[in-house]
Amino acid sequence: MRWILSATMKALIKSGPRPGLTLVEKPIPELTADGVRVQVMATSICGTDLHIYNWDAWAASKVTTPLTVGHEFCGEVLEVGPKVTRFQPGDFVAAESHVFCDKCRPCRTGQRHICENEKIIGVQRDGAFAEQIVMPERCVWRTPSTLPPEIATLQEPLGNSVHVALADEVSRRHVLITGCGPTGLFAVAIAKTCGAASVTAVDVQDYRLSLAKQLGADHMLDPMKCDLVTKVQELTDGRGADVVLEMSGNDKAIEDGLRCLSRGGDYRFFGVPSDRISIDVARDIIFKGARVQGILGRKVWDTWHDTARLLEAGLDLSPIITHKLPIEEYETAFDLIQRGECGKIILYPGGVPQ
Amino acid sequence: MRWILSATMKALIKSGPRPGLTLVEKPIPELTADGVRVQVMATSICGTDLHIYNWDAWAASKVTTPLTVGHEFCGEVLEVGPKVTRFQPGDFVAAESHVFCDKCRPCRTGQRHICENEKIIGVQRDGAFAEQIVMPERCVWRTPSTLPPEIATLQEPLGNSVHVALADEVSRRHVLITGCGPTGLFAVAIAKTCGAASVTAVDVQDYRLSLAKQLGADHMLDPMKCDLVTKVQELTDGRGADVVLEMSGNDKAIEDGLRCLSRGGDYRFFGVPSDRISIDVARDIIFKGARVQGILGRKVWDTWHDTARLLEAGLDLSPIITHKLPIEEYETAFDLIQRGECGKIILYPGGVPQ
Amino acid sequence: MRWILSATMKALIKSGPRPGLTLVEKPIPELTADGVRVQVMATSICGTDLHIYNWDAWAASKVTTPLTVGHEFCGEVLEVGPKVTRFQPGDFVAAESHVFCDKCRPCRTGQRHICENEKIIGVQRDGAFAEQIVMPERCVWRTPSTLPPEIATLQEPLGNSVHVALADEVSRRHVLITGCGPTGLFAVAIAKTCGAASVTAVDVQDYRLSLAKQLGADHMLDPMKCDLVTKVQELTDGRGADVVLEMSGNDKAIEDGLRCLSRGGDYRFFGVPSDRISIDVARDIIFKGARVQGILGRKVWDTWHDTARLLEAGLDLSPIITHKLPIEEYETAFDLIQRGECGKIILYPGGVPQ
Amino acid sequence: MRWILSATMKALIKSGPRPGLTLVEKPIPELTADGVRVQVMATSICGTDLHIYNWDAWAASKVTTPLTVGHEFCGEVLEVGPKVTRFQPGDFVAAESHVFCDKCRPCRTGQRHICENEKIIGVQRDGAFAEQIVMPERCVWRTPSTLPPEIATLQEPLGNSVHVALADEVSRRHVLITGCGPTGLFAVAIAKTCGAASVTAVDVQDYRLSLAKQLGADHMLDPMKCDLVTKVQELTDGRGADVVLEMSGNDKAIEDGLRCLSRGGDYRFFGVPSDRISIDVARDIIFKGARVQGILGRKVWDTWHDTARLLEAGLDLSPIITHKLPIEEYETAFDLIQRGECGKIILYPGGVPQ
Repeated sequence: MRWILSATMKALIKSGPRPGLTLVEKPIPELTADGVRVQVMATSICGTDLHIYNWDAWAASKVTTPLTVGHEFCGEVLEVGPKVTRFQPGDFVAAESHVFCDKCRPCRTGQRHICENEKIIGVQRDGAFAEQIVMPERCVWRTPSTLPPEIATLQEPLGNSVHVALADEVSRRHVLITGCGPTGLFAVAIAKTCGAASVTAVDVQDYRLSLAKQLGADHMLDPMKCDLVTKVQELTDGRGADVVLEMSGNDKAIEDGLRCLSRGGDYRFFGVPSDRISIDVARDIIFKGARVQGILGRKVWDTWHDTARLLEAGLDLSPIITHKLPIEEYETAFDLIQRGECGKIILYPGGVPQ
Repeated sequence: MRWILSATMKALIKSGPRPGLTLVEKPIPELTADGVRVQVMATSICGTDLHIYNWDAWAASKVTTPLTVGHEFCGEVLEVGPKVTRFQPGDFVAAESHVFCDKCRPCRTGQRHICENEKIIGVQRDGAFAEQIVMPERCVWRTPSTLPPEIATLQEPLGNSVHVALADEVSRRHVLITGCGPTGLFAVAIAKTCGAASVTAVDVQDYRLSLAKQLGADHMLDPMKCDLVTKVQELTDGRGADVVLEMSGNDKAIEDGLRCLSRGGDYRFFGVPSDRISIDVARDIIFKGARVQGILGRKVWDTWHDTARLLEAGLDLSPIITHKLPIEEYETAFDLIQRGECGKIILYPGGVPQ
Repeated sequence: MRWILSATMKALIKSGPRPGLTLVEKPIPELTADGVRVQVMATSICGTDLHIYNWDAWAASKVTTPLTVGHEFCGEVLEVGPKVTRFQPGDFVAAESHVFCDKCRPCRTGQRHICENEKIIGVQRDGAFAEQIVMPERCVWRTPSTLPPEIATLQEPLGNSVHVALADEVSRRHVLITGCGPTGLFAVAIAKTCGAASVTAVDVQDYRLSLAKQLGADHMLDPMKCDLVTKVQELTDGRGADVVLEMSGNDKAIEDGLRCLSRGGDYRFFGVPSDRISIDVARDIIFKGARVQGILGRKVWDTWHDTARLLEAGLDLSPIITHKLPIEEYETAFDLIQRGECGKIILYPGGVPQ
Repeated sequence: MRWILSATMKALIKSGPRPGLTLVEKPIPELTADGVRVQVMATSICGTDLHIYNWDAWAASKVTTPLTVGHEFCGEVLEVGPKVTRFQPGDFVAAESHVFCDKCRPCRTGQRHICENEKIIGVQRDGAFAEQIVMPERCVWRTPSTLPPEIATLQEPLGNSVHVALADEVSRRHVLITGCGPTGLFAVAIAKTCGAASVTAVDVQDYRLSLAKQLGADHMLDPMKCDLVTKVQELTDGRGADVVLEMSGNDKAIEDGLRCLSRGGDYRFFGVPSDRISIDVARDIIFKGARVQGILGRKVWDTWHDTARLLEAGLDLSPIITHKLPIEEYETAFDLIQRGECGKIILYPGGVPQ
């Protein structure tokens, strides 16, 4: 394949402080000294993108317009800046979307995922729902050319789930996953692959629970249709879930999950709540002797290696990819996500490959 | 010393569902097959005892009257039941106050502190503010006779603080301790002994902060008199506390402590809140990549060994023991605690030794 | 099924300090106060039994004759001593073969597998290759009646492999297993189930490598037929194995495995060498920043729970069970093991079930 | 102070493949694009330098002559290359002596201390026993100007000991340190500061044991004058040392240390043996359930931060600095080290400050 270099490109942008997005033709981004120019081959849509699309309070507080949105992508390197040493045109790459500084203390001690100065592409700097993006070399991840673009773009969100699911052991443990959006679904697949004693998926949408089943969940529970705590007790010899992965950000799901946690259990927050959360700290944390972790982003580059390993070992994500659309059909895509009638949607700036 | 065996004994009891305690003469407890009868040499008063004294909502929900109260003690073995193999009359002992079952799954996997069937002496079964107590052999802890009784009785509460402070590394970390009651004060001493980069003690009472200073705290802060978050940032190169030990159960202290926690920090709940707590999970747990643990009781027997080691290595608790009283003066004692004008009070059922 | 109580029983014993075993009729063991009498339904043979059969130097130093041998078994409870509280006739059980004291410091701090006073059945006290055995209640493990006896007896050796394989993460790691006797084969199955990036099995016998393949090994290597270090480098992007499980006790395998270990790798010794081992500590441990662990026995009862969970989750051991024989054919069994032409052999004191 | 820029400088070099060093005048090193030119204010001598001085087999295999030796230093930044962003003239700095590549997998996953491409200054590239050195910016460590140069230069070797001593908990553990050269002595001080239950220092030289005592060791043992294993058992309630830090590289010390290790103990190799080591793996690693780690260098930058914190918290190294000499007296210095009649020797390229 040969990419035609041009002065302008298609890009999906937030043009001003209001709902919706606009597909525009805009100048290609300028190459920086440490920059890697990537022709975007596939992108994918995240829940964060929906917040920006809807222009909710969080989005309004974070995003300055105009901005090219999107942060999950893969593509081919077109050209590199003069300081770049590890990449060259033709390389197939994805990228860490949290642009870390590599200078603060967390960055310098193996904790780039909690960089004190991070800027997320598609949120705080121009993103990837476009024909081209320029990324600093330090954030670019070499991807085997054998990986199809629709999987390669998923390394970023899959990495979130890897980070959550493997933050501590899941093998031989009863795992409860609250929230079956894409990151929850990825977590189902990872926990099963890594030897969980059982995986119980929780969501309020049948569509999502049926995807969880396809990905290997042992039990699918809708908390509106059962007494979740009682049900989980039954499935775990009365002890509760050893590990709870909170992938929804929903306050009811958090309360349910904490109540389902076993004594000595391990609770991991990933879904970001929009408000403060009321927690029965005495009952659910102290008297259980529970461990609770907040997880964000991906460990750079540990999680990326882990993710690559799981993909090599045959982790099958195909049931999660429910739609492939050209970037022009972005409104259809956001509408599907809005209604919860999809898994992961792949958007192609250059058209859906045949 | 020779103890006179008698059919009755002095005991401090909660006689009915109302505030206050009563000193009575009651029959000595019956010896069980696996029981160890102990002549109580010294006891000490805990915050839990104050809840029971005051008969607050928590106490009313847990305690069935009549009940001999108190759970911190040491003493000499008087006689042992026929199944007892490890103790004999004359041994100097203390005891794990959380009577664990040794049959449930946590008990059988090294986690007796989260036993599913525990009964706490002085709360759910007769306690130690008495001349005698009978404990199941499995809960009795042999104590070196070189340890003075007023220190030996403190092994139980000190064990709580050891469990909290050493649940993970404190060495070379900036440690913030919210709440300077006795367990908070013990934690100050332990963190200093174990190489904390700095220990900052937080309380609203000058008396307690001055005790924290005597125990080695580097900084003493009253959150009513300073902007705690700003102050802690200043003391930690702008990064916040690496470790926060929450020893108060107070909602304001919890909010302050979570805000003071550094990225990647380690927060440990020990003080039991009386209500649900509202937490900014996104800001304080997820985006910080924080770890949060609930800690209760002592690991049996790991924590007891750790505690013994720290005492052998010279941990000095003397500034915390502010009062020694005969059991008859229990009302003076509870009044001092009520007013926060004491560290730890030692009560002697047999009179204060000369 | 009803068991006929009789005064004597069949037992396979080491009658004196010389090679071989003898099948005898001897009095049934006496019931102790804390004892559980078990009718043995199935037993299985371990490499340790072969050492005793052959009467090598190790056996001569450990075993006092006469002794009933065998330590892997399952069966039905026939009667219990007066102090027993958790078992009753009819229960289906297996047992921890390392009779721990529950009084020493390791036992009392969650480390019973390194008990200071342990006696192993079939080695230091009468064992399980017999119609009956009496075990102390504290060592008896309740087993679901749905587990077939030939699997139930394997919980003990499988537990060894669980302890080794899951001592730290195997998921998304390249795992090398040196030695494909039964514990090595179990480890292959466990590592695959728990998400290893790849499992490479090493042995010098084709028979065993073919069993490893059946259990899911990705690569089977005979170090006599290839340059192991070079080959492992090829299979791991030139980095070496992240985890090495040493299941052979063989000095050449140890040297090979240490050389195959990656920088920052994790090496676990389980197979017991008969002699001192010469190690290039500088090259293989220090400059690699390697972690090395010695693993023995099973964590009691953590590992037993883990083992049960893996069996419930569907771990399939059937390819490892290559022979089922009545106890009378023990010489055939030991001959097969001697020649390495078997996986695990099940011996039935009461005859092979139809 | 003002440094005079000149075209040449004093440097202590290995001029050819033979014992000894030569003090020469040579051109100052060229500045690189990412380089930081440092005026060396103080340097210190390491055991590695003695190997190079003596030109033993290890040195002959690693070092290509001519080479400026020395790898421990501190100094003031004189000028910086065009790509340097974090330093400027006048900054007070030290440096990580293991020049890591920041491109290999360990470097990119928080494990720079096991970089696959490292070059050590003074061993594989020009070092610090000179008036100037140019270091890549990524290896330079900003040092508070309040730290005296003789302490600032010790951050590198102290970092080794911090890495070893704090690789896992030492608090409330009995710690045995085999080898009381400078890194062993640093480890004594660190273990005491971080709450070890006891620190036992082992060496064959009285001079070094007396330094260990000054640094706080509780027990000083010469294995030529006592039965070390028996003695350590006595000091640890018959259980052995919980943690052994091997700082000598000596085969006899390794054997002794492994035998002194408790069940479940933690053994850390740091001293590099010159030959293969014969280990009783069965007795000392497997049956003890021991953990063994190889430790090298410093975690970059975690260990440097830890080291800084310990120095801020008041770790007192002054007893270890036994000599301060001008670089011209290097032969005196190496002679003292050869004879073991010193702790750490500080060499000053610009003369000993008054």
